[in-house]
Amino acid sequence: MEDLNKQLDFIIELDKLKAIYRQALLKSDNNRFENSAEHSWHISLTAQILHEYAVEKVNITRVMSMLLIHDIVEINAGDMFAFSDQKVLAEQEAKEAAAANRIFGLLPEKQFLNFKKLWFEFEKAETVDARFAKAIDRILPLLQNMRNEGGSWVKHGVKKSQVIKRNKYLEGLAPQLWLYVCEQIDLAVEKDWLINS
Amino acid sequence: MEDLNKQLDFIIELDKLKAIYRQALLKSDNNRFENSAEHSWHISLTAQILHEYAVEKVNITRVMSMLLIHDIVEINAGDMFAFSDQKVLAEQEAKEAAAANRIFGLLPEKQFLNFKKLWFEFEKAETVDARFAKAIDRILPLLQNMRNEGGSWVKHGVKKSQVIKRNKYLEGLAPQLWLYVCEQIDLAVEKDWLINS
Repeated sequence: MEDLNKQLDFIIELDKLKAIYRQALLKSDNNRFENSAEHSWHISLTAQILHEYAVEKVNITRVMSMLLIHDIVEINAGDMFAFSDQKVLAEQEAKEAAAANRIFGLLPEKQFLNFKKLWFEFEKAETVDARFAKAIDRILPLLQNMRNEGGSWVKHGVKKSQVIKRNKYLEGLAPQLWLYVCEQIDLAVEKDWLINS
Repeated sequence: MEDLNKQLDFIIELDKLKAIYRQALLKSDNNRFENSAEHSWHISLTAQILHEYAVEKVNITRVMSMLLIHDIVEINAGDMFAFSDQKVLAEQEAKEAAAANRIFGLLPEKQFLNFKKLWFEFEKAETVDARFAKAIDRILPLLQNMRNEGGSWVKHGVKKSQVIKRNKYLEGLAPQLWLYVCEQIDLAVEKDWLINS
């Protein structure tokens, strides 16, 4: 039962991600902040629906697993607004690596190593699967903000150039999605939801 | 772009599942009610971690997809407490079938049919994948209640026999998990978290 007990401890630990709130606002629930658990669900499904747009071969099972686990480190490290300054983001990276060791380390050795490897692959974003996963993680806030009068962009005075940079993973990997994103960004500038610079 | 627009409408529709609250209480977030989106995330990962306990061959990719979509119908039909009476549960079934047609119907034809089929497979729980997915959906509230002094069981005066019946999918399919569940149920009775009948 030793392995099972470790696995159950990890599963219960996961409950804590439901208490980690992001900057994204949920129009569907009185504009409350979104938490990282429900966000992870949403992007896993989004990846499944949109992976036909990738022009390189994506292993959707690996992508879904990556997206399901990618935010778990926030249980220790907290969520960091995507457009925070570079120094803050660098400190966050170190915190997240330590968190990966502690939280995935609750699992039996083999699962611990698998999840840690998958999480690092996502973070580095060098493989096709990881780049696609990152791209999906980043397109969703754009979709949400576009349906919510600019949402977190307006609240934090975000610039067009920041959103373009953040969504660049799509450019070569899923050109049709990239085109859509560029059009939406222009529309957001027109509506004063993004700063034109 | 027509297919993409349909897919994006579906993806935005999913936000509404974050506003559907279940009876489960989240100890990790001041005992607020859990919503169906974060629950779906949690059980998809739980399935991935525990599928080695299944004694029949489980296709974990299909199981994860099933669990990610299984509650989407609640956007229209609402969540129904597992231990509601039979008449109420039967009415819920009809509402959910209509919801599946409307919500999955937002997608292009091929994805619509795939998701609808997968959802019906989960609901019927006849295949190994669907039985395992159901079993996982049902074990998690038990784990949560056991770490939260009985949680929703205590609040609603749930009986031991109801919880045993609900977790029966595990019996043949994952005997080690079934044994664990039976022990936990006995412990819950001992602690007066479940009614002994």
